[in-house]
Amino acid sequence: MDNFNYQNPVKIIFGKNTIPQIGPRIKKAGFQKILLLAGQGSIRKNGVYEAVSASLKSQGIEAVEVWGVRPNPVLSKVREAIKIARDKNVQAILAIGGGSVIDSAKAVAAGFYLEDIWSAFEDRLDIERALPLFTVLTVSGAASEMNQWAVVTNEAEHKKWSIGANPLFPILTIIDPSAQMSLPWPQTVSGAVDAIAHLLENFFMGTDQEVSLSIGEALMRTIFKMTDTLLKNPQDYDARANLVWAAGLAHSGLPAVAMKGGDWSAHGIEHGFSALHPEVAHGAGLGVVFPAWILYMQKVNPPIFKRWAKNVMNARTVPEAVKKFRAILKKWQAPVWLSDLGINESEIKAIAQNANLRGALGNLKKFSIKDIESILELTLKP
Amino acid sequence: MDNFNYQNPVKIIFGKNTIPQIGPRIKKAGFQKILLLAGQGSIRKNGVYEAVSASLKSQGIEAVEVWGVRPNPVLSKVREAIKIARDKNVQAILAIGGGSVIDSAKAVAAGFYLEDIWSAFEDRLDIERALPLFTVLTVSGAASEMNQWAVVTNEAEHKKWSIGANPLFPILTIIDPSAQMSLPWPQTVSGAVDAIAHLLENFFMGTDQEVSLSIGEALMRTIFKMTDTLLKNPQDYDARANLVWAAGLAHSGLPAVAMKGGDWSAHGIEHGFSALHPEVAHGAGLGVVFPAWILYMQKVNPPIFKRWAKNVMNARTVPEAVKKFRAILKKWQAPVWLSDLGINESEIKAIAQNANLRGALGNLKKFSIKDIESILELTLKP
Repeated sequence: MDNFNYQNPVKIIFGKNTIPQIGPRIKKAGFQKILLLAGQGSIRKNGVYEAVSASLKSQGIEAVEVWGVRPNPVLSKVREAIKIARDKNVQAILAIGGGSVIDSAKAVAAGFYLEDIWSAFEDRLDIERALPLFTVLTVSGAASEMNQWAVVTNEAEHKKWSIGANPLFPILTIIDPSAQMSLPWPQTVSGAVDAIAHLLENFFMGTDQEVSLSIGEALMRTIFKMTDTLLKNPQDYDARANLVWAAGLAHSGLPAVAMKGGDWSAHGIEHGFSALHPEVAHGAGLGVVFPAWILYMQKVNPPIFKRWAKNVMNARTVPEAVKKFRAILKKWQAPVWLSDLGINESEIKAIAQNANLRGALGNLKKFSIKDIESILELTLKP
Repeated sequence: MDNFNYQNPVKIIFGKNTIPQIGPRIKKAGFQKILLLAGQGSIRKNGVYEAVSASLKSQGIEAVEVWGVRPNPVLSKVREAIKIARDKNVQAILAIGGGSVIDSAKAVAAGFYLEDIWSAFEDRLDIERALPLFTVLTVSGAASEMNQWAVVTNEAEHKKWSIGANPLFPILTIIDPSAQMSLPWPQTVSGAVDAIAHLLENFFMGTDQEVSLSIGEALMRTIFKMTDTLLKNPQDYDARANLVWAAGLAHSGLPAVAMKGGDWSAHGIEHGFSALHPEVAHGAGLGVVFPAWILYMQKVNPPIFKRWAKNVMNARTVPEAVKKFRAILKKWQAPVWLSDLGINESEIKAIAQNANLRGALGNLKKFSIKDIESILELTLKP
């Protein structure tokens, strides 16, 4: 087993009616004026915004509000929020939403102290300082609430890139699973697939890391099981709570321990096409890419692909497991093939080029553009 | 699923040749003078003390050394170390050892700021302040390196009690699994059984916490598998590394999420007899108590006991699973029956009285003294 460093300092407050704790917690941490970052308004409908506002108000905390973060969050919005955060001289950030809002909030938190936040993405700068970040989670999947990573799209340059640094860990994350009861079904599924994908990126690197592998299996099985339960009964609180917690742990760093940094080429391919098709939900794209990726890669690390087929998918062979994976996606009404995403076969070359923009993808295997094209060909409906 | 709060801020540096990082890390944290707490000298034989000393020296860090912490660590030693820490005005503590040394170090860290450390145990005081704690782990099982708990025996009053508070989390823990390659086999087994027991105390509280249950199963299976591997080849580094990491996570708080605080009556019973028989290793005692406890308790929460039998022990029934558990302990050359611990049947009443000293044990079921006696009777060799 390889050497590793591990720390995840995020404080989690989890459960029903926990959102009113946000104001007292921010006050106790010593902040009176914050930037409140939010998405496109769903939190006005599910009661979360109202609960947060009341809690902040009760503690006399001033919130400077910035709305309108979109899925596949964009750099221009991050820059707008940084400017407001500086102009208003806020002391901390409160992100209310899912991965897009929290990722944007991390970029704002770091960018507050940088001349140009995109340089941190472009030049892979060390981020040594950031505004303290609090989050109230309303969409699970990205696990941004549990980690130090952020992905933002530079829409002018068609680049969907990431940053990661210890100062970007949220100080505190509040997760009330009941806030996700009203999510549209495709968003629940997209989140579940995203979480499974985070686990797979690490799992297939496996050799002798029994702890990480067995935790990865436990979380994948849990996510499959809970999403199935929610398909039958979207109001099942315990299934929702377990799905939400598993999705957070999936990309918390724990199942990635000693996994050589994970592979991340399937994510790279998905970023390649979602930069060109920003309307594609990240999880939906990953659900199309990953089965094809597994078929293409299975011979590179056979024992671990077979282990996944057996222990997670309850299948005898890897191709059978992939078939089951796609059948589950179909049952969940999720995209299975490239055409289900509204992407045409003719775009494969452009997607592969775009995915390869930052250099060769992959860790288990270094990908050529041809490798990426071959995987994308396996996403074509037979 | 119940609401929960969760945070584990411990920074872990894990792997071969990681111990020389201790000096630079303590220096970087801003400390020049520390209390070095250690056990009975094994770290002089396995090279750990030499590596730590050289690393501290290279950074100009002064170490005030206190040696002689014993298994089932005692209050008198804690008081002695507190006095020295104060007299020498140390800024932090470095514990080198296993659970006994680290637990003692936590009591010293808290006691440094208290008039009488035992009052924190006796009156369950809130511990709001403690000296910063660094640890170098040399014996796995207790998981004290990963959590905020400490157990100390007041030898004058025959009380083996615990404290727990956030300031007692180590800041940094260094784990080099190769330091445990030279452990006597019974100590490896005792640690493995202790870790399994920590998981069981939480697991059997289960209802709807799929994430915690599946992580608990994953860790238990890993600990059984890795200990079996080490029985055949004590020099297998990967098995040792996975065992050590699983044992730490087992009592890190993660598998205890939403588990209603765990049951802890088996631990309470074991504390009851180890206070009277301080020579009994904690893990050895737990190996004798837990199978009996499971047989006695199986009807209180049947689905979870059956789940454990099936998923962890690969058995059809709970009694069959307990039989397998005892057969594994025997194979590992661990004590299985009360008499294997050198404890006589005639002591059952005194042990039960002692275990009940702080009030009724148990959470899944509140125990009477008669319940404890009945469990202890199930530890008698048939």
